[in-house]
Amino acid sequence: MSTQSRMTPHTRLVEVRQNVLKKNDLQARALRERFADAGVHVVSLVSSPGAGKTMFLERTMTALSASHHIAALVGDLATENDAARLARSGARVKQITTGTVCHLDAEMVERALDDWKLEDIEMLFIENVGNLVCPSSYDLGEALRLVLVSVTEGEDKPLKYPTIFNTADVAMITKLDLAQAAECDRAVLRANITRVRPGMRLFEVSAKTGQGMDDWLEFLMLRASD
Amino acid sequence: MSTQSRMTPHTRLVEVRQNVLKKNDLQARALRERFADAGVHVVSLVSSPGAGKTMFLERTMTALSASHHIAALVGDLATENDAARLARSGARVKQITTGTVCHLDAEMVERALDDWKLEDIEMLFIENVGNLVCPSSYDLGEALRLVLVSVTEGEDKPLKYPTIFNTADVAMITKLDLAQAAECDRAVLRANITRVRPGMRLFEVSAKTGQGMDDWLEFLMLRASD
Repeated sequence: MSTQSRMTPHTRLVEVRQNVLKKNDLQARALRERFADAGVHVVSLVSSPGAGKTMFLERTMTALSASHHIAALVGDLATENDAARLARSGARVKQITTGTVCHLDAEMVERALDDWKLEDIEMLFIENVGNLVCPSSYDLGEALRLVLVSVTEGEDKPLKYPTIFNTADVAMITKLDLAQAAECDRAVLRANITRVRPGMRLFEVSAKTGQGMDDWLEFLMLRASD
Repeated sequence: MSTQSRMTPHTRLVEVRQNVLKKNDLQARALRERFADAGVHVVSLVSSPGAGKTMFLERTMTALSASHHIAALVGDLATENDAARLARSGARVKQITTGTVCHLDAEMVERALDDWKLEDIEMLFIENVGNLVCPSSYDLGEALRLVLVSVTEGEDKPLKYPTIFNTADVAMITKLDLAQAAECDRAVLRANITRVRPGMRLFEVSAKTGQGMDDWLEFLMLRASD
């Protein structure tokens, strides 16, 4: 593809997208350095719409907010609902509304942090737009990326959306309380996760009943203190 | 933006994407004409991953396959699982694996139809990649687009992903059998759908128990005979 005139729109799209991703990687790297310098442990969450990110995050933040300085950025195409929900934990929360954009990128995160003093924050959560595909390409400068999958989504999801599992550090099986009603075979779901990503750290939780949350919180605090 | 050198990667991405969409619209228009000429009624399905598209489609296709010539194209990033499931209905089924692409486009549909004789098909279903954002921008030449949302995803999803509801013709609330366990307030979910899209045609089904399927099938047959 030496001259522009021979390019199809698709070829151009791929090229321009690669440049955007390269730019995002540089911005994410700069963010990661800023977070490290300021001592902020950054955890991002990705999943399908409706996998329970916000409820899981609300429970996590409520458990931590008494003893730690925490904050959250939450991405959605529209509405400020999630920011309002998460603010109930007492933490600082800011909504990023993306319009029609299907993922957060490093620049959106950087802009949202504009008027926050990073040195005042120990742990920052970033809840991505609900999407099992596109967020996998965008580094946000996080130290830990969680992919959540609920027991109601079917055991095959890791096999059908492998990239997002490959770019995440931890898999979180959510809505454990619905496993029986949804007839989810958790052993198969777990096996499919480790088939895509052998040895992946895996938790199973119900944010509603609290089941499994202690193990997760213990792991999180250990990671944050590294 | 008069010169290329002044463009940011993002500006260029938006421009190139607009060209891709324009190209897709032309291809979709051509497809729609081909479908009309051949007498094929085309129905596409979009939803989050795990909203129950495949099970709903399997039940729909099984109900119709004895009396009608039906076929299906099914999109996923990876695996041929869904094609294998849908083939149990006895219909012709082809899997489109998109790799890392987060949606189907008109060109993929056209290519998949390459060795099928459209005149032999009365109804064609197209199951999109599980994604509540990106598929909304891509016309596939369908006559009817369904957006599915399951009772386990939370009542707020139509407000948070309005575009996909605006580009669909029919909303389908799925997994009705789990509504009580998931504590879904269906009245709120219905209200949120019609808040985004006043007057939208709406069905509530459980593909597992069969509840609501008769109403949907009756509607579908009426639309197909238009």
